[in-house]
Amino acid sequence: MKTAIFGAGRIGKVHAASICMDPRSELVAVTDVVGEAAEALGREYGVPVRGADEILDDASIEAILIASSTNTHADLIERGVAAGKAIFCEKPIDLDLERARAVRKVASGSKKPVMMGFNRRFDPNFAALEAAYSAGEIGKGEMLAVTSYDPAPPPAAYVKVSGGLFRDMMIHDFDICAWLFGMPERVTASGSCLVDPEIGEAGDIDTAVVILDYGDGKLATIRNSRRAVYGYDQRIELLGSEGLLQAENILENSVTKSTTAGTVSAKPLHFFLERYMRAYGTEWSAFVDAVVDGKPVPASVEDGVNALALAEAANRSLKERRSVELREI
Amino acid sequence: MKTAIFGAGRIGKVHAASICMDPRSELVAVTDVVGEAAEALGREYGVPVRGADEILDDASIEAILIASSTNTHADLIERGVAAGKAIFCEKPIDLDLERARAVRKVASGSKKPVMMGFNRRFDPNFAALEAAYSAGEIGKGEMLAVTSYDPAPPPAAYVKVSGGLFRDMMIHDFDICAWLFGMPERVTASGSCLVDPEIGEAGDIDTAVVILDYGDGKLATIRNSRRAVYGYDQRIELLGSEGLLQAENILENSVTKSTTAGTVSAKPLHFFLERYMRAYGTEWSAFVDAVVDGKPVPASVEDGVNALALAEAANRSLKERRSVELREI
Amino acid sequence: MKTAIFGAGRIGKVHAASICMDPRSELVAVTDVVGEAAEALGREYGVPVRGADEILDDASIEAILIASSTNTHADLIERGVAAGKAIFCEKPIDLDLERARAVRKVASGSKKPVMMGFNRRFDPNFAALEAAYSAGEIGKGEMLAVTSYDPAPPPAAYVKVSGGLFRDMMIHDFDICAWLFGMPERVTASGSCLVDPEIGEAGDIDTAVVILDYGDGKLATIRNSRRAVYGYDQRIELLGSEGLLQAENILENSVTKSTTAGTVSAKPLHFFLERYMRAYGTEWSAFVDAVVDGKPVPASVEDGVNALALAEAANRSLKERRSVELREI
Amino acid sequence: MKTAIFGAGRIGKVHAASICMDPRSELVAVTDVVGEAAEALGREYGVPVRGADEILDDASIEAILIASSTNTHADLIERGVAAGKAIFCEKPIDLDLERARAVRKVASGSKKPVMMGFNRRFDPNFAALEAAYSAGEIGKGEMLAVTSYDPAPPPAAYVKVSGGLFRDMMIHDFDICAWLFGMPERVTASGSCLVDPEIGEAGDIDTAVVILDYGDGKLATIRNSRRAVYGYDQRIELLGSEGLLQAENILENSVTKSTTAGTVSAKPLHFFLERYMRAYGTEWSAFVDAVVDGKPVPASVEDGVNALALAEAANRSLKERRSVELREI
Repeated sequence: MKTAIFGAGRIGKVHAASICMDPRSELVAVTDVVGEAAEALGREYGVPVRGADEILDDASIEAILIASSTNTHADLIERGVAAGKAIFCEKPIDLDLERARAVRKVASGSKKPVMMGFNRRFDPNFAALEAAYSAGEIGKGEMLAVTSYDPAPPPAAYVKVSGGLFRDMMIHDFDICAWLFGMPERVTASGSCLVDPEIGEAGDIDTAVVILDYGDGKLATIRNSRRAVYGYDQRIELLGSEGLLQAENILENSVTKSTTAGTVSAKPLHFFLERYMRAYGTEWSAFVDAVVDGKPVPASVEDGVNALALAEAANRSLKERRSVELREI
Repeated sequence: MKTAIFGAGRIGKVHAASICMDPRSELVAVTDVVGEAAEALGREYGVPVRGADEILDDASIEAILIASSTNTHADLIERGVAAGKAIFCEKPIDLDLERARAVRKVASGSKKPVMMGFNRRFDPNFAALEAAYSAGEIGKGEMLAVTSYDPAPPPAAYVKVSGGLFRDMMIHDFDICAWLFGMPERVTASGSCLVDPEIGEAGDIDTAVVILDYGDGKLATIRNSRRAVYGYDQRIELLGSEGLLQAENILENSVTKSTTAGTVSAKPLHFFLERYMRAYGTEWSAFVDAVVDGKPVPASVEDGVNALALAEAANRSLKERRSVELREI
Repeated sequence: MKTAIFGAGRIGKVHAASICMDPRSELVAVTDVVGEAAEALGREYGVPVRGADEILDDASIEAILIASSTNTHADLIERGVAAGKAIFCEKPIDLDLERARAVRKVASGSKKPVMMGFNRRFDPNFAALEAAYSAGEIGKGEMLAVTSYDPAPPPAAYVKVSGGLFRDMMIHDFDICAWLFGMPERVTASGSCLVDPEIGEAGDIDTAVVILDYGDGKLATIRNSRRAVYGYDQRIELLGSEGLLQAENILENSVTKSTTAGTVSAKPLHFFLERYMRAYGTEWSAFVDAVVDGKPVPASVEDGVNALALAEAANRSLKERRSVELREI
Repeated sequence: MKTAIFGAGRIGKVHAASICMDPRSELVAVTDVVGEAAEALGREYGVPVRGADEILDDASIEAILIASSTNTHADLIERGVAAGKAIFCEKPIDLDLERARAVRKVASGSKKPVMMGFNRRFDPNFAALEAAYSAGEIGKGEMLAVTSYDPAPPPAAYVKVSGGLFRDMMIHDFDICAWLFGMPERVTASGSCLVDPEIGEAGDIDTAVVILDYGDGKLATIRNSRRAVYGYDQRIELLGSEGLLQAENILENSVTKSTTAGTVSAKPLHFFLERYMRAYGTEWSAFVDAVVDGKPVPASVEDGVNALALAEAANRSLKERRSVELREI
């Protein structure tokens, strides 16, 4: 499956490695508005840097991977669909929900798979939790709790263009909730700026809790912080009628040291590249499965719109200090 | 310290043992509206069953322990204060917040200690977490998460007179939050009936999530369920600017078994009597410290009123589907 | 069951508390060669200090608990048997194996239970491991590994009269192996003095490893150190044909703290009084069960002789640098 | 660094992947006595199958990786040294200690690095333990315990040509002990056949314990079993004067499930390919570091001879039922 990458930044590089590891896919071209980045990535993998139009017009290229900046995602998906490409796009579709819904409409007409990069669904730990839950191992789901803390806050400059904590960071956790529990009826958000005052000055929060109320009585909570000094903290806990599932952090190593100060174990893997390294590879293979073997797309544009709708509801809830019904969004 | 027990039920028996274990206190009388219960407890400890009035009038009795039914607490505290007794009273003061506030006023005039039985503050695990937090070991507190699940729901008959999940069960967790973070500005509650339909028919919920918003941006969440089939689940997690504190469950034993099915460890201690056995003893000794050595009361009537106010706010939030400011209560 | 204590030292006090906690037994007398110690314990429990002869002659005293110094155990057991008492004796029977065998012969003629205080068999964790193993949960036993480290070495003065590491410290671990795997055919010991040179000067070791070879091919290893700075380290691991059982340490509390330095958990309970506190109570109740209800004695004089024989074999193995057949002993 | 692989079996394939992952090394040829295996591996990596002589004669090939059967290792190392190649060789050098010593002499004359594939030294967990120990974090080392169980026994046919448990399986653990504690003075072995009677009939054991006694009083124990039904069990524990280091197993995932049956966690990674996958890559990069950057070889032919000498001593100890001084070997 000949594949071109749009966007040669940090996440583009991760995907380039995944493309090369799956024997069914082949990286054939790279493009980026920053010429140097594209050149560097192209050189590393021995593939040419080409223009976006050129790539879309090249019928031999079967798939495109969109890892460029968020504001380009919606257009590129639409153009990719028009060009008959299979599309893998990093989240989010767009910061604007209406725009994302328009993209969904376009994507629904595509004959080729269009997949969103919700990498956490492919984390082997979260996937094992989901599999156990789906298999009924803890009976009916009742309460879900997602803990998701970054090791350190991004620069305030990034925060300004990020779309805010709910659309930039918690969107992954909204997707986890939707993946496990479906879409809720109501969203209630609380948040504050405790980590970096500049984030507050940029109009955003860095600490947040959200409750999702489901029509059948299920409840989900998400906790986000932009700073956990001990490392990337990514856990899921799911209470069911017949038990509890917990997915714990993955540590840097399995060594413990016991001294007069107690027993010390290693920190969690530092950040998303370390923690989700395996997930990125599995995610890409799932996309190739969809394109090559016709398997269902495991994270669709619909899922992207859903996560964005939850973020929108959370923003409104925070602003208006009330629970927001999802049907308002 | 000569002590009389009001209420010879399950929790009264636990306290009787604590009274005997502390060499500074002595059980001298028992009373209960159910004569048989009082007789049984009296026989076990070789102390006489006496009437409530008689006990209150006996100047040689320095302290009373109130472990009778909730609806008697307020009156007994007031009568005990009038009789010049040191008082240890099980939570809650009363199901009615105004009544509790009236008791607080009376208790504030007492020359002897009046202490509320918030046993969890004395759990060695929670106490170690609190000590580490107070010592600044994780910097400034930011997010608190309390998980508190019972192993099995109580009979619906009990639920009807319990005052509801927030005042009967979550009141302990409200106290934990107040103990660690003080009183919040705003309370937001979600809840549903997923465990036992009879609880729903009795007008109550059995599954709940509450968010507490603090004036300085701190956030706390509490999750309650009336059923965790694997046992009593009592955990606290506290994120600070310099780290995370977690108090985990205590297991029945430390044995693990690894087979082709994975590694199995023991269940958490079954319920509150097992888990908080040590806490009850420590709690009683703290009360004796207050009476005998003049140390400060570690859980006051004020604390009881505060926990009840949070429960009241949660009830209102659930009913009106909105965040409730604490100043409304 | 009226009981007298011989020996009012540290371990005598622990047993006094156990005697009082079991409603079926009653402490009625105390004796000790150190008059002050006996007085203090007697005062604490409100029982008289009496002479050893007087106690043995008092037909109303049904049981004696021997917690005096090791060199008195053998005589007291024999005199107790002659006086028709039920006997609970701290380990070891004697430092001399032949003397212990003579006691065994006497004890075998007793109509009342004679029990040795191998407290670890009553530790709830080790007991749960033994129960799972006996129930066949891991198939046939193959390899046993006992780790047993003290937090700090005893004074060299104590070491001189202790009988040495194998008879004083590892004797407990020999008993654990005999309890789980029975008696081996062969014993191989290695040891050295790494912790305290004075222990070496006193002719003893402070660090040791022993292998037990069983006739059916089973293997057991015991590791001892007089110093584990992080606390009392008491673990058992048992590999079977269908799985592995592990009994881990019990920690001071369940709190963990995650910071930039990793995650720290609490130390193991400091020493035997803390770790085996519950075991002492259960052990005593098992003795009362034997005396009052005629249940089998769970740790007999035979067991005491067996553990001593293993210690003797280990001493010989260490001295002669060869494996020692148990039949040589 | 142009590299040729000798041996296209299971472990050869693992190394082929490592060679390709390190950008400094390139796989250029494959050889195997089984033509089909060589063809398959060559096809997968697009490299030619060539004869052994041809490879050794090709001056453009800088390094050879020896992953062929054990009986070919010694000759290939010697021929490789003669041909001026850098050599990476799987353990063991040879089953015969004298032959291995002869190879050591030849290798000591090589101008290019000759490295033995003791993969466990490169496991990130064991490496972290070693780093902490070397840094003095637990003071002076006192007792080392290595647990190393395979998930299932190999076919008896393999056992017959393997050289026996000590040279085939425990050789890795001997190397771990030598790596951490150096060479001991004395070796004492016990072993039996508990897992598969055919292994016993082939003259081997499948269950073993070894004690290593060091000149300075340090002690090490190794436990091996050919069967741990719960998975590959690979742990190290090191007691020092100031603490304890433990390297625990790595589990398949971090999910736990709590039900009425207790809490279940995942099994250890199944076998060496899963557990040491990362180690193989790191190991290879260390070899490239030695060849390209002149860094010291982290596992030398000397180390290979040492591990073999310990295996030889263990065999003699088992046979003669006595401790064997290393100077006898």
